[in-house]
Amino acid sequence: MSHEIAVLPGDGIGREVTPAAVDVLDALDVEFGFADCEAGDAVAEEQGTPLPEETVETVREADATLFGAVGETAADVILPLRDVVGSYANVRPARAYPGVDALQPETDLVFVRENTEGVYSGIENEIAPGVTTLTRVVTDDASRRIAEFAFDYAEERGSDVTVAHKSNVMRVTDGQYLESVRAVGDERGEEYDEALMDALAMHLVLRPEEYDVVCCPNLAGDVLSDLAAGLVGGLGLLPSANVGDDNALFEPVHGSAPDIAGQGVANPAAAILSAAMLLEWLGEDEAGEQVRTAVEGVLSDGPRTPDLGGDASTDDVTEAVVDRL
Amino acid sequence: MSHEIAVLPGDGIGREVTPAAVDVLDALDVEFGFADCEAGDAVAEEQGTPLPEETVETVREADATLFGAVGETAADVILPLRDVVGSYANVRPARAYPGVDALQPETDLVFVRENTEGVYSGIENEIAPGVTTLTRVVTDDASRRIAEFAFDYAEERGSDVTVAHKSNVMRVTDGQYLESVRAVGDERGEEYDEALMDALAMHLVLRPEEYDVVCCPNLAGDVLSDLAAGLVGGLGLLPSANVGDDNALFEPVHGSAPDIAGQGVANPAAAILSAAMLLEWLGEDEAGEQVRTAVEGVLSDGPRTPDLGGDASTDDVTEAVVDRL
Ligand SMILES: CC(C)[C@H](C(=O)O)[C@@H](O)C(=O)O
Ligand SMILES: CC(C)[C@H](C(=O)O)[C@@H](O)C(=O)O
Repeated sequence: MSHEIAVLPGDGIGREVTPAAVDVLDALDVEFGFADCEAGDAVAEEQGTPLPEETVETVREADATLFGAVGETAADVILPLRDVVGSYANVRPARAYPGVDALQPETDLVFVRENTEGVYSGIENEIAPGVTTLTRVVTDDASRRIAEFAFDYAEERGSDVTVAHKSNVMRVTDGQYLESVRAVGDERGEEYDEALMDALAMHLVLRPEEYDVVCCPNLAGDVLSDLAAGLVGGLGLLPSANVGDDNALFEPVHGSAPDIAGQGVANPAAAILSAAMLLEWLGEDEAGEQVRTAVEGVLSDGPRTPDLGGDASTDDVTEAVVDRL
Repeated sequence: MSHEIAVLPGDGIGREVTPAAVDVLDALDVEFGFADCEAGDAVAEEQGTPLPEETVETVREADATLFGAVGETAADVILPLRDVVGSYANVRPARAYPGVDALQPETDLVFVRENTEGVYSGIENEIAPGVTTLTRVVTDDASRRIAEFAFDYAEERGSDVTVAHKSNVMRVTDGQYLESVRAVGDERGEEYDEALMDALAMHLVLRPEEYDVVCCPNLAGDVLSDLAAGLVGGLGLLPSANVGDDNALFEPVHGSAPDIAGQGVANPAAAILSAAMLLEWLGEDEAGEQVRTAVEGVLSDGPRTPDLGGDASTDDVTEAVVDRL
């Protein structure tokens, strides 16, 4: 059976690292059909919208999507697409790799971020001149769903869950979130920790090795996962998955990096690791493991792009990964 | 002229570090009147409320308040008190001290946190079973006020301003905030940077030395300043000021630390540095400088409490600071 993958490179280095990830998928003993599509700043210039209806259809009908990066119009592209794939969980592993400079070399975290609500509701108003509001939404349904996902994920990984929140201030909304997470935890007989997101930010910086899976409301997950990127040396190595019940979108956490775009020196590791997450989500666990191991090998003693202090090109790194498959 | 100071030790180590800060103030050539008052878990047990009306009155009538820390009831005490003193700016310096172990020894940041609105509005509802909302409020008035404060503060310090926001997602509310900050910046002819709070979290971890004054919405300031505490070795050294037009409250950023409370080993540095901020706010700049220099001296080669790897007591450190005045 062939897997139908929508390929959406986007802007800037997205156009360099996404083809690299496709090359790696192509080199595997797994059958794929690839459907290219466009979104982002360049398309917005041409067509007047950063997210053409055709792209939405391609993503909707694919088994999964490989996404690159988008520039200025990022929010106009990625937020609707998370919705198109019905993604309620955003999974963001942040780990330090042997041989790669990291402020905290023991970091091995996975953020499981609620991907549908919180301050991402889109409900905003100017209710009087200079007086604006945003409605932060937290529901029992979404909170239970993300809790189930986080506990399942941690079980597979054999690791512990920490639940981030700010319920001392957001008493009703994060109160609801905590109540729902606790209900799921109780039903399943899970042990886990709860942590205020501010204190957690400090503890993650000081002692990341004490944490594993961190279950977060939407914005907390956005910020804490970027913080963790700092601990492992930057965004160049962080993949992510936007997971729904029967569709999913995979993307490097980094952006379109206009400063280095077009030079062929972008680090393809995050995009290739995102492809490994795609493989695992498709049930191709063995191939996923193969890709991950190949990337780790290259990171530890293969060619390096300039962000990691080397002078290799995107292609050099991609070939080195393919050679190790 | 004597300065009337409300002294509110609170719970746990607040009861140990606040008297230490008072001892230091007492040793200066500045006249003070101290009015003790109570708030927190212990008072809640006795009187049924963590914030007795008497305390509110004492704080309201004082020239300034020296606050310690409160346990479980922290939010019920500190949020109303910030309101009582009319505090619209929360100032949180986070710097690494020579001789103190820090993950990023070049860190020297000051967070200027909006202290009245954002997700701290307190407007929350359960609008259907399991469906809750919080109204995040952002106004032109509060945004301009915090921008003015941040630019003034940076000017005095001779440093640059970075404005944290998440306007790509919170388009109307953080859009308003940015618009207001930009208007102030334009009027004053200021140069400054803008940064998305997620990307900023990463950059602060990787390269804190590139930042100075960070102007933040309320929750962003809460989280990013705790992150910075991690970079300089923890909360034990971070003072803060809640500043209004004609009243202010000064507090260490750390909590009541029930695990070490009662042992006499809490690090009084954050509380004493908060007293230095109080002195400067009262216009006693010379005395403030004196205290700060004394604390720095002790941190670099004086006795140390266990959190900094020493075995000195709170009293030992306090005496060492007083000796250096
Ligand atoms: C581009 C932006 C809307 C997005 C988000 O906030 O989710 C990004 O920061 C991310 O984390 O994927
Ligand atoms: C105790 C809590 C309400 C408070 C806050 O969120 O402001 C604390 O975290 C702080 O930063 O002073």
